[in-house]
Amino acid sequence: MAVILSGKAVAEAITEKTRAEAEALAAAGRQPLLLVVRVGEKGSDLSYEKGVTRRAQNAGIEVRVKVLPENVSGEELTTVLREASEDPTVSGVLPFLPLPRHLDEKIILSALVPEKDIDGATMASMMGVYTGSGEGFAPCTPEAVLRILDHYEISLAGKRVVVVGRSLVVGKPLSMLLLKRNATVTICHTRTEDLPSETRRADIVVAACGHANTICREHLREGQVILDVGINFDEDGNMCGDVAFDEASEVVQAITPVPGGVGPVTNALLLAHVVEAARRAASREPLVEARRK
Amino acid sequence: MAVILSGKAVAEAITEKTRAEAEALAAAGRQPLLLVVRVGEKGSDLSYEKGVTRRAQNAGIEVRVKVLPENVSGEELTTVLREASEDPTVSGVLPFLPLPRHLDEKIILSALVPEKDIDGATMASMMGVYTGSGEGFAPCTPEAVLRILDHYEISLAGKRVVVVGRSLVVGKPLSMLLLKRNATVTICHTRTEDLPSETRRADIVVAACGHANTICREHLREGQVILDVGINFDEDGNMCGDVAFDEASEVVQAITPVPGGVGPVTNALLLAHVVEAARRAASREPLVEARRK
Repeated sequence: MAVILSGKAVAEAITEKTRAEAEALAAAGRQPLLLVVRVGEKGSDLSYEKGVTRRAQNAGIEVRVKVLPENVSGEELTTVLREASEDPTVSGVLPFLPLPRHLDEKIILSALVPEKDIDGATMASMMGVYTGSGEGFAPCTPEAVLRILDHYEISLAGKRVVVVGRSLVVGKPLSMLLLKRNATVTICHTRTEDLPSETRRADIVVAACGHANTICREHLREGQVILDVGINFDEDGNMCGDVAFDEASEVVQAITPVPGGVGPVTNALLLAHVVEAARRAASREPLVEARRK
Repeated sequence: MAVILSGKAVAEAITEKTRAEAEALAAAGRQPLLLVVRVGEKGSDLSYEKGVTRRAQNAGIEVRVKVLPENVSGEELTTVLREASEDPTVSGVLPFLPLPRHLDEKIILSALVPEKDIDGATMASMMGVYTGSGEGFAPCTPEAVLRILDHYEISLAGKRVVVVGRSLVVGKPLSMLLLKRNATVTICHTRTEDLPSETRRADIVVAACGHANTICREHLREGQVILDVGINFDEDGNMCGDVAFDEASEVVQAITPVPGGVGPVTNALLLAHVVEAARRAASREPLVEARRK
């Protein structure tokens, strides 16, 4: 039976550190603040907003929500992001994505400075990940994968890691982050001819393909570490990952559960990024200057 | 004995098309022009400049060379690139890299519009490759690898491709281009633990590590296709690739030679990009408008 790599323990450790840093910053007159930018009234956005607000406040981070109508113009939204970029009281900005179809996401997001782009959604942050320069922030989900491995002291250097999925939000940035950690990285996808033979030779498999039960018994062998990034729902409405958990956990050495694996770590990292952004801003700008604004 | 995948044949086919397109554009009052931007008098830059000028003129492309002193300021160089970006008579710009150390390459290059960035050196072009949006141009060397495979009708979809090297000029962009063509891509590097076992299972191996004889007999098996991106010089001063050619060509199915493999195709693609940039500019801007400027 596999070791269960609980994300909760990792998330708690991150959140504890976030809370302590937020308190220290607040005590120094630098209260960390997250600005949520929501366009429209989509149900999933509203429930995520509720969750992130509660978690942020629990970690000592203030939350401000800017709500814009579904038919907001690109110009208006750009102005919101530009003003937030310049506002010294805003530490980090989370625009809910995807934006409505009439808006050009790439152009609009470029109004947000990478220093406040806490989920790595801007081109500048993406370049930071691709080039390894570290500009901006990595998207939270791929970073969560690394943080779970770090927490459980699973090393990456020289290891064979197979990433299943090539999306711009997980597969590609994760591959770049893994390369930087000196892993040998294979990127598989829907067009990979013999997926089981790829995944079976991996030391670590990351499932990020977005379909339940993509990775099952035949894809796995003993001794492997499995990270499941998937968030799907089965016929009964229960949340599940991309890995057939019951089958997999009988075979492999360690596996993240869904729920309770990558998800909570992703959530915790978002807030860690807010505090990190606040900390960096504080070190760039002396307090006197900040107060004068 | 392996089939030799000559780059010369591929380069000639590309250049022939480039020449025809350049002639057609010139006849329509849209003479394609390459601006070379050279800082200082480095020997390797001077000899490359001579070569690219000859090849460009041979393909019907005009060449203008802007020479700046070794101690040029970042501002001055930025102005040159900004003016070239705006100049309708300039189709494509090739700044010789790396720039001297006192210059911030990334910031300076951002003054060049991706539409004229014919060797994919700007952040905007890099993002085009990483995200798959196609903005700007891919760097010529990784694109040359694909063009050789296309020319010899070697398909990529579903194939196992192992890229040895993770540089920002070849390994990373090539991996992204291969992914877009639906290959299953493994990125290996100096920290890969068992390189022979990675490369041996590939259908296609691309050597882009920058060291002679990195890939030899033990890394290879029958039936493979090998592309050698390396440009090294042996003890006798002869140019050689990253693959031990004599050993390799006894085993594998097909291999590019060095010299005469990827290199000439890279050179031909640079000029193809100049003409492509001129063609795109012509389609964006009616002739009357262009003449008025």
